[in-house]
Amino acid sequence: MIEEIKSAYNRINKRVVRTPLLTFPALNEFLGGTIYLKPENLQHTGSFKYRGAMNHIRSLAEAGKRPTIIAYSSGNHAQGVARAASEANLQATIVMPSDAPKVKINRTRAFGAKVVLYDRVNQIREEVAANLENAEKSYLIPPFDNNLTIAGQGTLGLEVTEQLDGAQLDQTLICCGGGGLATGVTAALRHAYPDVLSYLVEPEDFDDFGRSLVLGDRIRNSKLTGSICDAIITPTPGAITFPLAMKLKMQGLAVSDDEALHAVAYAAQKLRLITEPGGAVALAAALTNKIDLAGKSTLIVLSGGNIDNDLLQKALSLDLPAKWR
Amino acid sequence: MIEEIKSAYNRINKRVVRTPLLTFPALNEFLGGTIYLKPENLQHTGSFKYRGAMNHIRSLAEAGKRPTIIAYSSGNHAQGVARAASEANLQATIVMPSDAPKVKINRTRAFGAKVVLYDRVNQIREEVAANLENAEKSYLIPPFDNNLTIAGQGTLGLEVTEQLDGAQLDQTLICCGGGGLATGVTAALRHAYPDVLSYLVEPEDFDDFGRSLVLGDRIRNSKLTGSICDAIITPTPGAITFPLAMKLKMQGLAVSDDEALHAVAYAAQKLRLITEPGGAVALAAALTNKIDLAGKSTLIVLSGGNIDNDLLQKALSLDLPAKWR
Repeated sequence: MIEEIKSAYNRINKRVVRTPLLTFPALNEFLGGTIYLKPENLQHTGSFKYRGAMNHIRSLAEAGKRPTIIAYSSGNHAQGVARAASEANLQATIVMPSDAPKVKINRTRAFGAKVVLYDRVNQIREEVAANLENAEKSYLIPPFDNNLTIAGQGTLGLEVTEQLDGAQLDQTLICCGGGGLATGVTAALRHAYPDVLSYLVEPEDFDDFGRSLVLGDRIRNSKLTGSICDAIITPTPGAITFPLAMKLKMQGLAVSDDEALHAVAYAAQKLRLITEPGGAVALAAALTNKIDLAGKSTLIVLSGGNIDNDLLQKALSLDLPAKWR
Repeated sequence: MIEEIKSAYNRINKRVVRTPLLTFPALNEFLGGTIYLKPENLQHTGSFKYRGAMNHIRSLAEAGKRPTIIAYSSGNHAQGVARAASEANLQATIVMPSDAPKVKINRTRAFGAKVVLYDRVNQIREEVAANLENAEKSYLIPPFDNNLTIAGQGTLGLEVTEQLDGAQLDQTLICCGGGGLATGVTAALRHAYPDVLSYLVEPEDFDDFGRSLVLGDRIRNSKLTGSICDAIITPTPGAITFPLAMKLKMQGLAVSDDEALHAVAYAAQKLRLITEPGGAVALAAALTNKIDLAGKSTLIVLSGGNIDNDLLQKALSLDLPAKWR
């Protein structure tokens, strides 16, 4: 995978935002270790999804192909694909669940994409998209379970390696829906940090990936909706990402919606960063001490920042625990 | 000045956050030009002030000096100096107005600095600080009217030049209190872009710098308090920054508190960036069309993000004009 990630890096390096690697002394003091935050909420379209989408779009350009682009997405992949496609002057059709946050649907449309809404419970989004794909001369960009997607998203790990410039790194916390970012970044980091521990973080009740890692076999969530972490709800681990995560010896953690929303509030009030709940679960796991951070160097990826204004206001009205300095 | 800025860049380059240069297609479409946003609210301590402070601290280290550090500041310079001093294990005493935002006073203390509060109307902060300076074996880091400060803050302009990588730049909008950032960045940009127009943006009723530029002579504001743009209220242009701004042919613009707060709301809701009103005046000037942006490439510096939670909540409750997409 590392060679594919390096190829992706060379392909998209000049087109993605090189998000900074941030440190906050107060956060380090609170958690007792060194925390590196990668604010991918500042990436084009507000999430890491743009990296994977752009890797596909540039690969198509290299091959001289100009298909219609198709994607299915709860919102962040939708925007990433829509912007990447529009930058290459390619038509895009995006299949989105009808209960996706309005801000995500609106922003996807703003990039000129045609948006097809579907019912998350009664329709299977892959089938909706596949039908579209058959009907048109088109190219589908999968949200996670695809090597170009994983490699593109994994470029974040190569950036972090460069930014660390040889500094120690013991472990990393990465949000996880289908596992493309978590596996891609872990694979990239292991090249420079062979012993780095890697934890993927999911919402409670939607922790199919973590539970599958324990069982050594892919299981499904019993629910498909019902979390504010809409960005990272997927029914089951990917056919490619799951064995990759097993091989990388990743472990799963889960946080509640309440913990995720408090992390959104913490990021806004203390770190000056706007995140969405699904993009803040890794930070939430750190703030609630799901793993030991004391004396260690930990990378936390903030993966997305597309939050509806009313939910952000709700987060800002929360009282933070006194010890969350 | 450019040589001093280059020296500063080499001195602090590895220690400051290389904030990204962000573009937002929806913003470009709305304003009809290409907008480059430099989110210096993501700099260490939440503002560009850290750059100037670190230039002083590293210069002291190069000279083998270890004085007590003194600064006077409405809050952002305070934090920049406090963190830079603490990283060099130097004691710092910071003189702050008693009406500074709580978040700024608290964050300054969190860096281990001793904070001395003064009355903004009845005491002159320079005198308070000078008294402290005489009383102790100390070194004062001025907030703007000093070549090391200007050069350190101006490194932002060299970063932007590198990030633009040869792309066109027609004009720039930069917030202005004492003028250190505005003149430093303009001097740096002119090295690569000799014809770039430069506008400094101040709060209405506190636009001493812009009015002084028109008159060709330094005048004072009639008021010293009474704007939510606390970060950029200074009584009069600097003795160094004013002639520099004249030489650089800069021009002044002013925005109202209401326009600044709407820009804070826009940045949070549309750009996923948390700014403070004083850090958002340049964006406010663009959003309210104080200059013509159509068909031009414009750099907008977002200079700070230290905002009290209740003011941020107030901003998020504002209705944005429908055309502010």
